[in-house]
Amino acid sequence: MDFKLELTKKINEFENKMKEYLPEETGYQKTIFQAMNYSLNAGGKRLRPILLMESYKICGGNDNNYFPYSVAIEMIHTYSLIHDDLPALDNDDLRRGKQTNHKVFGEAMAILAGDALLSHAFQIMLGAGMNTNYPDRALNATYEISKGAGIYGMIAGQVADVESEGKKIDKEKLDFIHINKTAAMIIACMRSGAILAGASEEKLNALTVYGKKIGLAFQIIDDILDIEGDEIIMGKKTGSDLENNKSTYPAILGMKESKKIAGELIKESKDALKVFNGDTEFLLSLADYIMSRSN
Amino acid sequence: MDFKLELTKKINEFENKMKEYLPEETGYQKTIFQAMNYSLNAGGKRLRPILLMESYKICGGNDNNYFPYSVAIEMIHTYSLIHDDLPALDNDDLRRGKQTNHKVFGEAMAILAGDALLSHAFQIMLGAGMNTNYPDRALNATYEISKGAGIYGMIAGQVADVESEGKKIDKEKLDFIHINKTAAMIIACMRSGAILAGASEEKLNALTVYGKKIGLAFQIIDDILDIEGDEIIMGKKTGSDLENNKSTYPAILGMKESKKIAGELIKESKDALKVFNGDTEFLLSLADYIMSRSN
Repeated sequence: MDFKLELTKKINEFENKMKEYLPEETGYQKTIFQAMNYSLNAGGKRLRPILLMESYKICGGNDNNYFPYSVAIEMIHTYSLIHDDLPALDNDDLRRGKQTNHKVFGEAMAILAGDALLSHAFQIMLGAGMNTNYPDRALNATYEISKGAGIYGMIAGQVADVESEGKKIDKEKLDFIHINKTAAMIIACMRSGAILAGASEEKLNALTVYGKKIGLAFQIIDDILDIEGDEIIMGKKTGSDLENNKSTYPAILGMKESKKIAGELIKESKDALKVFNGDTEFLLSLADYIMSRSN
Repeated sequence: MDFKLELTKKINEFENKMKEYLPEETGYQKTIFQAMNYSLNAGGKRLRPILLMESYKICGGNDNNYFPYSVAIEMIHTYSLIHDDLPALDNDDLRRGKQTNHKVFGEAMAILAGDALLSHAFQIMLGAGMNTNYPDRALNATYEISKGAGIYGMIAGQVADVESEGKKIDKEKLDFIHINKTAAMIIACMRSGAILAGASEEKLNALTVYGKKIGLAFQIIDDILDIEGDEIIMGKKTGSDLENNKSTYPAILGMKESKKIAGELIKESKDALKVFNGDTEFLLSLADYIMSRSN
């Protein structure tokens, strides 16, 4: 398998189908639709929706019932970036090589666009759940996503991150931030995809471990790229962690040790998939890709 | 029935039971729990959770299964107020006689507290849905709330409102704002309560009409109180609509006509309940209370 080609194919497929879920830019609330669509269409790795899809398929799902959840998870991810970029938080001007949402639409509209994406994500999932033969699975999968995005998941990490700015923190707190801010939503992708497909407990657990390990590795690589990465390839400013005196893996453990830990996490993520017979090629390559990514 | 006494009893009952759903203020994300609880505990009319409960009961619900939804709807209402009060939006310092969330916790935390309340509301409802014998009703009721809060509901009204600031708008647009910003969530309360109780289509429709009419009346009275209300009783600044040159019912149609329309809406809301046999006393009195309220 040519992984890069396969990944690009999946990204294109996702983005094409996602269009059907974007609000039409009309009506008195037109601006909010424009603001939502602007950030949803601004590219990105589409890692989360693809993980959800792969999890669904690897657990035996062979239709498109997972798709609304893929779109929803990308909406939730996008809302978190829009709010994260706001002046009161990270105050970033650039995201994925484009102006951040509040730079284009203003702060009020960016706050509302984040709120809108979060609400609409649930509306899409619940609407899908009302039209399925498996309401229990739908409730369970949507619950996993709400949990990953919530106050014991992504928001917990975000809060601890905001409060740690400019402070020295220890590895325990840094892991709390990374696991919640990034891994929680990736775990939610893996689990909700698996649940929708009716996976066994064993497979569900394996995918949870995979998600946690690649999620944490992903964030460590993010920290590393903020030091070693190329601004043009990444589409955003690098060096800001150092500038802001931010506690990161490289800052706490050094570059060499950070890379070693990321490598071990990737290996462990791949090991977790051994309970599956075949079909894991894409997820295995994806783990390696996270390790070697340059943006 | 002594309506005021009955209402106070229901408010106390709700606030006592709500406590079980509030996050414990501990852990690395402690501040967000404090910020959420601060605004949830800041009082308020608790109109939405009480409407949801009444709708459930009037449709035959005789257990506490509605309760998580009542808490969730109050969380969503509270999130919308926190974000609405932010400097980038209404820039309000006072809410319910207390400092607004961002005044106490700062802008970053107030943005995140709103996000947290919205996410957690869904987590609570979905968690309840996973533990019910009626997953279809749970999905349907939660969907109604997502719709009322979403881009074709509350957020639509909010966006149109923000964009109309300082501009002359016509009655059509003002009705769009009022119906979406306020009535949509009140309709969602009525509908979700009814759906959870397994109401007939006829009763569901009647409660939808009731919700729409009292929701619109509620907002017209809000406009009126901003001119005629007492700051101390209301716990917030009055006169800001005039100051901000805001288009309101009194501004567009005059005070007398506005009061007449509100009165008609209240009458129509009560008429809609005629399909019920008995049991409507509280909702009828509540409609009158909305008309005569002073805060």
